[in-house]
Amino acid sequence: MINEFQFIREIQQQIPQQNKNVIGIGDDCALVEHGRLWCTDAMVDGTHFLREKSDLADVAYKSMMINISDLAAMGGYPEHALLTLGLPEDLDRIAVNQLIDGFKSACAEYAIDIIGGDTVASSALFISVSLLGSLFRHPVLRSQARVGDFIYVSGTLGDSGIGLSIILDKLSYPVSDKEYFLARHYSPTPRVELMKYLCETAKIHAAIDISDGLGDDLLKMVNVSGKGFFLEWDQLPLSRQAIGASLDQNPRYFYDQALNGGEDYELILTSPDSLDTGHIFEATGVQLTPVGRITEAGYEIRYNDEIQDVEKAIRKFQHFEQ
Amino acid sequence: MINEFQFIREIQQQIPQQNKNVIGIGDDCALVEHGRLWCTDAMVDGTHFLREKSDLADVAYKSMMINISDLAAMGGYPEHALLTLGLPEDLDRIAVNQLIDGFKSACAEYAIDIIGGDTVASSALFISVSLLGSLFRHPVLRSQARVGDFIYVSGTLGDSGIGLSIILDKLSYPVSDKEYFLARHYSPTPRVELMKYLCETAKIHAAIDISDGLGDDLLKMVNVSGKGFFLEWDQLPLSRQAIGASLDQNPRYFYDQALNGGEDYELILTSPDSLDTGHIFEATGVQLTPVGRITEAGYEIRYNDEIQDVEKAIRKFQHFEQ
Repeated sequence: MINEFQFIREIQQQIPQQNKNVIGIGDDCALVEHGRLWCTDAMVDGTHFLREKSDLADVAYKSMMINISDLAAMGGYPEHALLTLGLPEDLDRIAVNQLIDGFKSACAEYAIDIIGGDTVASSALFISVSLLGSLFRHPVLRSQARVGDFIYVSGTLGDSGIGLSIILDKLSYPVSDKEYFLARHYSPTPRVELMKYLCETAKIHAAIDISDGLGDDLLKMVNVSGKGFFLEWDQLPLSRQAIGASLDQNPRYFYDQALNGGEDYELILTSPDSLDTGHIFEATGVQLTPVGRITEAGYEIRYNDEIQDVEKAIRKFQHFEQ
Repeated sequence: MINEFQFIREIQQQIPQQNKNVIGIGDDCALVEHGRLWCTDAMVDGTHFLREKSDLADVAYKSMMINISDLAAMGGYPEHALLTLGLPEDLDRIAVNQLIDGFKSACAEYAIDIIGGDTVASSALFISVSLLGSLFRHPVLRSQARVGDFIYVSGTLGDSGIGLSIILDKLSYPVSDKEYFLARHYSPTPRVELMKYLCETAKIHAAIDISDGLGDDLLKMVNVSGKGFFLEWDQLPLSRQAIGASLDQNPRYFYDQALNGGEDYELILTSPDSLDTGHIFEATGVQLTPVGRITEAGYEIRYNDEIQDVEKAIRKFQHFEQ
């Protein structure tokens, strides 16, 4: 199975770009003429959700959120959407209404117009969303992390992965607030307001949203920036109250979720400045947590001050060619 | 199974549009700010192609062409593409290379940059393409047909359907040039150059590309325009030479293909003027054929001057509420 990163790079290598004004191949979005951001992301039954276990309103809603998150990570916000829906023959009226409800909620919350699309018959239910948006100010690229930058993450990490474990009945240790984790899995919150505030008030060098897990996405960021990182694993922000007593008994399990759990749709941000996180929280309601630094090269992860084996710690770890 | 037309209209009805500057819900493309055209269209294994019977280079190429055709029908041309690929686990290196080859040919021919996308695991192979383009001059909408307009079609009709019948071993009468019809099915030619010429030199009121069959797409055009049509069925342009002797023996079979066969990706155009088709052919290499007129209301189809039962003639016929 070819992964997204490889395939996009292959296309880059094999198909010469003719328009040099476009920024963004391999980033969260493409930045096209007139400062417009453009992205696409899909959800497929059996891969990103299980139809028989899902309210399709959640699936439709989330298919919009994961795209909005890509725009936020580039320093922008959504305006228009095109939908491509692959619908199985046996999809009934109730399911169709659920889909419409999910799109409706997403559009109302983020002032998006669905202005077209395509509905096709497909054995596997899928939703492919494409969004057009605009920049708050300047584009924030994943490739611009600089040596010495502080690494911040927004919100709390691992929540969506814990939610998925609950759905799949694979959670190893009980948590005190299951509903919280399910909501975090089904309804991620793209950090649009946070990025608006940061673009207007702070110096952000690089950003990427966390879809494949903090460790994996941080690797993507530093590799494309040609840098390394130092990460304090035990500083990752967890949803302590919602986890409850299991956290003290099995902390490593939950820190592992925070490092490797996908689909949090929080942001990794780098800044040359030590940000006033208290002030940012007051203004946006979102917690930023410093978790490490950008270095010249190499990957260093510490847990309670002990150096960890990075290839073991980051489950998806793979060597990228530079 | 809900169809595309219904689903898009439901979204229109249920989700209020917030940005009144956008034209195009229900048209071939959406027209967004700065005169940019934006469209999406997907191809799914089992619905639009059969993976085991296809060179995936053809499928990838065609997935681009059907989108370019949407842009052409609105009076525009492509610039950038985003791809969403749903790839089954068992897809091998050869198949991936075929896909890349197909995209590469399409990009080279139409000066398109692939500037991003998403690759996801999916049980059904699918390709969803989204294109951004620009207008040659003014947008050409399907909804602007006016009473008295001449109806023209480009190229020849029914070819792709005959090609599909050959692939599925369902062709009822032999044709003399099978390869021609297969090529027309696998590699449709979006009428970009024709539309460029017409936008610059002629008065075109309305246009739509033929993806679902001339009859079905003409119905869509006149219904959304609030008009009717008169069609001379026996005037539809056929690929006479490639069909050969069967045409004289079974003309009705081939005229039925021309009226109902999908995926020709030719254009239906309406103009208040009787166009100089000889001159247009010289300039663009594409034949335009007058096949009828736009009327105030109702649908009239004549075959050798005899009035036909429209609901029988157009296989997909359905009553649209106005």
